[in-house]
Amino acid sequence: MAQNLLKNKKTILSTQGYRGTRDFYPEAQRIKNFVNSKIHQLLKSYGYEEYSGPFVEHLELYAAKSSEEIVKDQLYSFQDKGERKLAIRPEMTPTLARMIASKQKELLKPIRWYSIPTCMRFERPQRGRLREFDQLNVDLFGGNALDEDVEIIMTAIDILRSLGGQYSDFQVKINHRGIINQFLANIIKISQDNISPILRLFDKKDKLSESDFNQQCQNLNLNDKQIKSINTFLQASIDEVIDLLGPYAQSAQDLKQRLDILTTLTSSECIKFAPDIMRGFDYYTGMVFEVFDTHPDNHRALFGGGRYDNLVGAFGGDELPGVGYGVGDVSLTNFMEVHGLLPRLFKETHVCVLRFSQTDRLMALQLAKQLRARNLNVETSITESKFGKQIQNAEKLGAKAVAFVGQEEMEKNAFSVKWLHSGQQETFTNNAEGYSNFKEKLMSFI
Amino acid sequence: MAQNLLKNKKTILSTQGYRGTRDFYPEAQRIKNFVNSKIHQLLKSYGYEEYSGPFVEHLELYAAKSSEEIVKDQLYSFQDKGERKLAIRPEMTPTLARMIASKQKELLKPIRWYSIPTCMRFERPQRGRLREFDQLNVDLFGGNALDEDVEIIMTAIDILRSLGGQYSDFQVKINHRGIINQFLANIIKISQDNISPILRLFDKKDKLSESDFNQQCQNLNLNDKQIKSINTFLQASIDEVIDLLGPYAQSAQDLKQRLDILTTLTSSECIKFAPDIMRGFDYYTGMVFEVFDTHPDNHRALFGGGRYDNLVGAFGGDELPGVGYGVGDVSLTNFMEVHGLLPRLFKETHVCVLRFSQTDRLMALQLAKQLRARNLNVETSITESKFGKQIQNAEKLGAKAVAFVGQEEMEKNAFSVKWLHSGQQETFTNNAEGYSNFKEKLMSFI
Repeated sequence: MAQNLLKNKKTILSTQGYRGTRDFYPEAQRIKNFVNSKIHQLLKSYGYEEYSGPFVEHLELYAAKSSEEIVKDQLYSFQDKGERKLAIRPEMTPTLARMIASKQKELLKPIRWYSIPTCMRFERPQRGRLREFDQLNVDLFGGNALDEDVEIIMTAIDILRSLGGQYSDFQVKINHRGIINQFLANIIKISQDNISPILRLFDKKDKLSESDFNQQCQNLNLNDKQIKSINTFLQASIDEVIDLLGPYAQSAQDLKQRLDILTTLTSSECIKFAPDIMRGFDYYTGMVFEVFDTHPDNHRALFGGGRYDNLVGAFGGDELPGVGYGVGDVSLTNFMEVHGLLPRLFKETHVCVLRFSQTDRLMALQLAKQLRARNLNVETSITESKFGKQIQNAEKLGAKAVAFVGQEEMEKNAFSVKWLHSGQQETFTNNAEGYSNFKEKLMSFI
Repeated sequence: MAQNLLKNKKTILSTQGYRGTRDFYPEAQRIKNFVNSKIHQLLKSYGYEEYSGPFVEHLELYAAKSSEEIVKDQLYSFQDKGERKLAIRPEMTPTLARMIASKQKELLKPIRWYSIPTCMRFERPQRGRLREFDQLNVDLFGGNALDEDVEIIMTAIDILRSLGGQYSDFQVKINHRGIINQFLANIIKISQDNISPILRLFDKKDKLSESDFNQQCQNLNLNDKQIKSINTFLQASIDEVIDLLGPYAQSAQDLKQRLDILTTLTSSECIKFAPDIMRGFDYYTGMVFEVFDTHPDNHRALFGGGRYDNLVGAFGGDELPGVGYGVGDVSLTNFMEVHGLLPRLFKETHVCVLRFSQTDRLMALQLAKQLRARNLNVETSITESKFGKQIQNAEKLGAKAVAFVGQEEMEKNAFSVKWLHSGQQETFTNNAEGYSNFKEKLMSFI
């Protein structure tokens, strides 16, 4: 295959990348770096540490740990030249589980970890969904479930706030797997094999009309009383659910504690009990949550996560309960976009050192070196275009000043500066004192 | 394939990742982040901007732009579920070429770009070489060749220096494709078809004894006079080469200019003319260079790069000459390791907020929130273990202090602090003034 293509080196190549992947030109990369630096900073303030792992894992890891949908339909799997079966990571959790299982005994608890891996899934690209995306993963192990659940949700909320979001810009919808399980098994007495299909139906309720939803309930052999009870349940407050569940309300009471603490720490605007939040993955066993954008143009889930009891079980280690979530970079950028939070970021070049002939090259390079040693960002001219053209270029780069050492300056052991905001020109001595005077003045304009 | 594996969910999974890939636990990730932050900072000080691109490209891109060795032996290629032929990137240059070709007209010149992509090649893992690695790529377009060549090498040197390297810790070996071409074609008059095999032989000269080298020259039908001339040439200084080439010395004179400027800007220790440096890739057309570690335990090439005339030709755009290099993260880390430059980095937690019962949770969370709002890194207890145990844990995290709001503090609207270096305890008021007094004192211990 590769051999055939090698022979066609003369064909004109397409400049299009693979569909569903992105090219980050410097302008886009600045935004990406800005968002990531806010995430790093916020998570560090909570004591979370970054980790990372391979882009490719043995296929069996995903076959065992990822959902059937991912493994069957979305995985990029292949063999290496030694016929080992591999796959590109569709999500980070299997790698996280493998890494933690591998050092489970040595790791200091609590484990507060995060990563921002690039992942790939074969899906139809659309708004908010690409084939290649970065997904922040935050996980917490080794403490009380209540403390962990509150903390993990607080980090999600504070990430949005550190990106400029207000409490009214998003809503954390929280549920507990135990609530729905108790409701189905003990209140409306659904048989065990009917529970999964009903959970799947709940999960897509938002996309169905009321009558379609009721019809699909009937298709699952639910009677009118059960359907009515489901509709009541799905609109109930947490207190109503506690009443409804009676002796089976432990999970609901646990969840209420979380809701109360989170509301006190943030705002009642953004914390919401939502009995219809299911989360697809098999492994969630306690609290589950999604963070929704409240903007009408982007009404979708940003973050999703929950509590699981047995992350590392498949590796034969001791059970390690924990809580975590994921959020895609595309979702975060869309959130910032609709709320007008995307900053305009510029290249941070402070000074351009110009030159005009073959003879001033070394002086220019030496001056640039001295200024860089003082933590300034300095670009030097790599052409000998006219003064005016070089100034224009410096302005496009956002520089505050241009500096140069012409014949006259060389004789006086000096360098000249033209301040771009005023057009004024000024001369500094070409020594430590001059560099530091220049820097001081430059900094006053930034 | 995936289907079969799905049925085996009960098998105990291996915690080993795919051979030649790495798990970055937080300790290793800190080093990686440290090195990358130095690189970002240094390149920013030269006006370079980060870009990035897809981990996977159409196979034809690499088939056209990568070397035959990479395409035939080292590529991870596969098909997506729509039967599109793809490959994991073995190097960044093809993506760079595609991205620049795609916006060639719009991009402001000069183009100073860098990226730190993760790449994969199917090779036998060994010291300094893995199957998955990060490779810094730095490229420069749009100026005079001389200015560009000097600048690109200066950035490589200054990266090593920003990581703590001295001029004596590495050597930049520089050559020019034109020198060797002129020497072979016009001085010892090698026929055109014999040039490639001879270049390949030169490239591996370091690994051959003198007699093996001479033997292999004979195998290529070189006569004794030619072989003697080659041996003289390969040990000549740049001035001797200029003499030797006589009327064909233009490339050598160009290179001498670069060597002189670089020596003046740095040190004669680290700048070296090396007529045997070839660089494998077809596309280098001018200056080529490699940066070697001078440490006896790690005597290998770190950086490699050079000048090319036609990066974007395959896309049908105008010729765009430029210069660039690559350096792997494994090489950089090995360099730092042998020279004792790897820093000991710790988790930067400032304060642990402790709690001891179910009743002080909210006070602890509120206090942590206030301290985080003042840019402190704060971990809160997520267990109710004993005071001594929580203190021990805080010490392991490198915290400077623990803080808590017990019953007594609650009544006085205060919080207590225990300074971990002295064991002394002190109380602050639980308000803005108290937080800022605490922060001020904490900062004096950092």
